[in-house]
Amino acid sequence: MDKIILAHGSGGQRTDELIKKLVLKYFKSKHLSHLPDAAKLDVKKKIAFTTDSFVVNPLFFPGGDIGKLAVCGTVNDLLTQAARPRFLSCGVILEEGLPLDDLEKIFSSMDREAKQAGIEIVTGDIKVVEKGKADRIYLNSSGIGEIIADVGFEKIKKGDAVIVTGGIGEHEIAVYMARMKEKGVLSDCASLTSVVLPLIEKFGGSIHFMRDPTRGGLAGVVLEIAETARTDITINEGSVPVRKEVRVTCELMGFDPLYLANEGKMVIVAAESAAGSILDFFKKKKLSRLASIIGRIGSPSRKPEVNLRTKIGGMRRIEKLSGEQLPRIC
Amino acid sequence: MDKIILAHGSGGQRTDELIKKLVLKYFKSKHLSHLPDAAKLDVKKKIAFTTDSFVVNPLFFPGGDIGKLAVCGTVNDLLTQAARPRFLSCGVILEEGLPLDDLEKIFSSMDREAKQAGIEIVTGDIKVVEKGKADRIYLNSSGIGEIIADVGFEKIKKGDAVIVTGGIGEHEIAVYMARMKEKGVLSDCASLTSVVLPLIEKFGGSIHFMRDPTRGGLAGVVLEIAETARTDITINEGSVPVRKEVRVTCELMGFDPLYLANEGKMVIVAAESAAGSILDFFKKKKLSRLASIIGRIGSPSRKPEVNLRTKIGGMRRIEKLSGEQLPRIC
Repeated sequence: MDKIILAHGSGGQRTDELIKKLVLKYFKSKHLSHLPDAAKLDVKKKIAFTTDSFVVNPLFFPGGDIGKLAVCGTVNDLLTQAARPRFLSCGVILEEGLPLDDLEKIFSSMDREAKQAGIEIVTGDIKVVEKGKADRIYLNSSGIGEIIADVGFEKIKKGDAVIVTGGIGEHEIAVYMARMKEKGVLSDCASLTSVVLPLIEKFGGSIHFMRDPTRGGLAGVVLEIAETARTDITINEGSVPVRKEVRVTCELMGFDPLYLANEGKMVIVAAESAAGSILDFFKKKKLSRLASIIGRIGSPSRKPEVNLRTKIGGMRRIEKLSGEQLPRIC
Repeated sequence: MDKIILAHGSGGQRTDELIKKLVLKYFKSKHLSHLPDAAKLDVKKKIAFTTDSFVVNPLFFPGGDIGKLAVCGTVNDLLTQAARPRFLSCGVILEEGLPLDDLEKIFSSMDREAKQAGIEIVTGDIKVVEKGKADRIYLNSSGIGEIIADVGFEKIKKGDAVIVTGGIGEHEIAVYMARMKEKGVLSDCASLTSVVLPLIEKFGGSIHFMRDPTRGGLAGVVLEIAETARTDITINEGSVPVRKEVRVTCELMGFDPLYLANEGKMVIVAAESAAGSILDFFKKKKLSRLASIIGRIGSPSRKPEVNLRTKIGGMRRIEKLSGEQLPRIC
């Protein structure tokens, strides 16, 4: 029994074996021990709730794997709502023939990352489909967090600073290079609990809005902010942090880093008065050492625009990506 | 644009279009309108949290479809913990080439069933994979409910009645016949909110344990109860409700109805003293008209056994299913 077979999804003896041998080996929550259909949880009255499916290809890439990615993605989505990550679900779709070793690596990676991020895996589900009906493994993780501060589009004001917590594009370039069987760029895949929770504790009301720039990249997030808050935004190209190895690959391949996916970064809109201290705070943390103030919230507008002040001093309007640069990056 | 293309998963313009045209057309929760990465929700302090992925084949079958199934499955899992269903997530993995009409049918069915079940779809996610890397659509739904009563293995007592709310095996036989391009059996796919919530209100402390007999069937649930509560159980074969059309197919095909999946039934362990009144209560409701007391909780045991008293008066031990009767029934 070293590969997934259809009977692993039957709800009978083989499912039992798989759960006992592999799932409970890593996921040790007391909520899971009796394998109830639903976990019973104590929470505060205001919670954040989020879901994401993960179909990344390859499953293992420099800096992470589909399991770590699932935990980080869901944790960071909770953090965007100023919620303390608490509980995680794990829904697994397996393709018949998947080596059990790969599944074990993925579960152990989820377990490690969940501990790191301070979230507990409390409920799960496994389905198996025939060979050729999935690509080895797809994951879903849904998360619950307890809201500890009030952030949202409605708090964004003219003059607010737009901050990004580090270099952009690293995840998508790492996945791209892994597909090309090349190395050189690590995915930034990381849970931001240890950055965002202290940030909220320290700067509370000065943090107006947060969003992690995953699919659609930094450009996607900034456009979304402009559209939803109905305000113009200006971004300074020269202030946007891009690591050299990402910049080189982008130039070679014609990618625009503004549209590349990140999996361990946050875009933050904060009160101008606190922006300097926030930047100092970020620069002291390993996960946000390259943080930078990249732009300002402009005037309210019924047809909001995002403009990029280019390095050579020109202005370029940022538009939504039509099509995509790479499929299945997360 | 009448089929899913990879760009629908990009996080750019096409994703936006798909969400605006199809998702927000059906899912009208105020929590979804700004499409945040996580929904902010008010809940009671004790919640139930559950997740399930759905890979059923075919997508549409007599009595339901993958969308209805996802909502019912998650709602019923919440109800097993005596939780009032409140919030639902919807994670979608789409295969390139899926007709948008099919996706629309599925979303509209989810919307209809969620309203019926009293649960609100508040957060979601869409991924697209290349043709041949999935089977049209896979769904994940995770749910949050508010716990209104205390049920669980630890409440099960010797002498308790084991009740099933209706005929068994209908879902699996309906899916089986749909694959054979035959008709005749409707899936029992249904959310049990309207049965279980009033049951709890009326009989509160007399309800000791609930579980929906999906994969693994009635036998799987009864075996699980015996193992976890460490008690013998006796089931009367003659009291187990099986509709004639299910019985006929089982006899023809050699299926054992005890192991067949259900998607609109509940197995309930209740105090003996209340069992008669509970049965009367069930028989007045459309979704549980065929309810029956099928057995009793026996003595505590370190090696618990489930025994079936057969119609001809013999005793047969019920064992766990090894392998499975049909793959991808949910």
